[in-house]
Amino acid sequence: MSNLRRSIILASRPKGAPSADNFALDESVMPKPAEGEVLTRTLWLSLDPYMRGRMSDKPSYAPPVAIGAPMTGETVGEVVESRDPRFVPGDVVTGAFGWQSHIISAGDRLTTIPKGAPYSAYLGVLGMPGATAYAGMTEIGQVKPGETVVISAASGAVGAVAGQLAKRAGARVVGVAGNPDKCLYIQDTLGFDECIDHRAVMDLDAALRDACPNGIDVYFENVGGDLQDAVYPLMNNFGRMIMCGMVAEYNDTKTRPGPNLMDVVRKRLRIEGFIVMDKPERFVDWRALAAPWVADGSLHFREHVVDGLENAPEAFIDLLRGHNFGKLVIRVAEPSKGA
Amino acid sequence: MSNLRRSIILASRPKGAPSADNFALDESVMPKPAEGEVLTRTLWLSLDPYMRGRMSDKPSYAPPVAIGAPMTGETVGEVVESRDPRFVPGDVVTGAFGWQSHIISAGDRLTTIPKGAPYSAYLGVLGMPGATAYAGMTEIGQVKPGETVVISAASGAVGAVAGQLAKRAGARVVGVAGNPDKCLYIQDTLGFDECIDHRAVMDLDAALRDACPNGIDVYFENVGGDLQDAVYPLMNNFGRMIMCGMVAEYNDTKTRPGPNLMDVVRKRLRIEGFIVMDKPERFVDWRALAAPWVADGSLHFREHVVDGLENAPEAFIDLLRGHNFGKLVIRVAEPSKGA
Repeated sequence: MSNLRRSIILASRPKGAPSADNFALDESVMPKPAEGEVLTRTLWLSLDPYMRGRMSDKPSYAPPVAIGAPMTGETVGEVVESRDPRFVPGDVVTGAFGWQSHIISAGDRLTTIPKGAPYSAYLGVLGMPGATAYAGMTEIGQVKPGETVVISAASGAVGAVAGQLAKRAGARVVGVAGNPDKCLYIQDTLGFDECIDHRAVMDLDAALRDACPNGIDVYFENVGGDLQDAVYPLMNNFGRMIMCGMVAEYNDTKTRPGPNLMDVVRKRLRIEGFIVMDKPERFVDWRALAAPWVADGSLHFREHVVDGLENAPEAFIDLLRGHNFGKLVIRVAEPSKGA
Repeated sequence: MSNLRRSIILASRPKGAPSADNFALDESVMPKPAEGEVLTRTLWLSLDPYMRGRMSDKPSYAPPVAIGAPMTGETVGEVVESRDPRFVPGDVVTGAFGWQSHIISAGDRLTTIPKGAPYSAYLGVLGMPGATAYAGMTEIGQVKPGETVVISAASGAVGAVAGQLAKRAGARVVGVAGNPDKCLYIQDTLGFDECIDHRAVMDLDAALRDACPNGIDVYFENVGGDLQDAVYPLMNNFGRMIMCGMVAEYNDTKTRPGPNLMDVVRKRLRIEGFIVMDKPERFVDWRALAAPWVADGSLHFREHVVDGLENAPEAFIDLLRGHNFGKLVIRVAEPSKGA
């Protein structure tokens, strides 16, 4: 093992879309864990749209990453050195945060993944995005059989799970995605009833109306922008808008106006935001529910794998453009033999 | 009893603010109740902002009043003739609808009011507006002690009850109203902690920030417009916006833009609309809870009484301008002796 730790740090705050200049590769001396801490070697790093918010010093639900500090991100790592009796070298864990080759964490924050499990799945379908879809659909969506559910970014890490949960609840599910391959996957593999390719249609409002002849009961919002504008007037009485993210607006330098809220009164809409980390029990509940579905193949997921920590900035920039297809993960290193 | 029934009918649909021309007084032959029906003589008529929606043929949660048909409105009436065995002449009931001197109703829709009760209160504090405040505060607001609650149209029929419920729940309550007399009443009689006179302040945003140094946890929305714009950025994490009405925009001929919804995600806001009539049990629950508070004087209410059915159009036009002070009711007729 090299005696250097590699980190991708935030070099400057982006104005609009991030560029490679906003990131830098840093090498530093390998840290040593203190009492109660664990040093992990990163195997997989998760890249997710919310990280755009951490690059900015605009108000957010979490403090921004400081200039010069490592970017934050969920990882799967292998324990190298442990000063927490619950972990021994070779254990594979999730819960360590950072775009880094090695991470020091409080042992309390780590969770062991069973040996041989699909490790990267713990960053996607069984990780934060899966738990996000689960929390939004169960706590806010509360889908009933026969309802129409629209899922934005439907081939993404959150959307793919959200839509499959809606199908399991008996809904008619319409996905929205950004290219024909994604739409094919959404319909053929994920089993959604319809998919709209928002880059291919001439008139998004009309396409959505056609796909939702009975209106929309539940909307899972990941993107905002034009799609939100098209969805809002089609919401049915007692409709729910699950406000998870608005990635299409994350690079905006000027705030767009939103929908007039009179429809919320007259249609009795519920528009509600949530952050999955607010309730850690959601992760436990979701893994207990979904791990068997992943094992038996009934819950589908797709990963977009990029090799090498040094490629994380470019991959992240592409993620915000929707160029990924499936959950974006960086393969930082291979597990050691036996892990 | 005269053999003519007087009705205020909708003569034409308003463009923007309603004017007297949009209404007409109609006289017609006194109707006779059919089997299961009851004829009432109206004592009190309730005028409420939602009726502006019924004058329009824009989409709403209820069908519009037809041109030439009587305007709709809750009343308290005295039974004149009954073909429902549950009612006898002289009974005082609520549940009949119409800007009319006499109304035919299905007996199933009527509820008897105890003799000697403050009849008009069954149109306000114990009626639809009171039940509206109760439903919004309990089902959506869920106020916790120490939270900051802002009430718009705070001296109005709904706002006055909503704010008093928030005080009972242990909140710090800030009212917003449109003149100094209303603000005095809101603080001195209703017991709110602060009141902003939105017509008197130079800078509504600053006034609201000053009145809410800890931000806003719950907003009871009756008005929309500039006040909504001022409230939205001050909402705290996990804040609730109880979307009851937006009277400041009812006369708009062009829809205003609303707030960008990214704050809903990052602050985990809940913005939810409701219509009290969707759940009739709310009326029963509220009357059971609040009738003792009205009887013991601990729940304050104020009525703005206008005499004469023929004055209802002008009073309604003034209501939309905020010229009423307290729950607006029309005294249509006196009860007969013994009722």
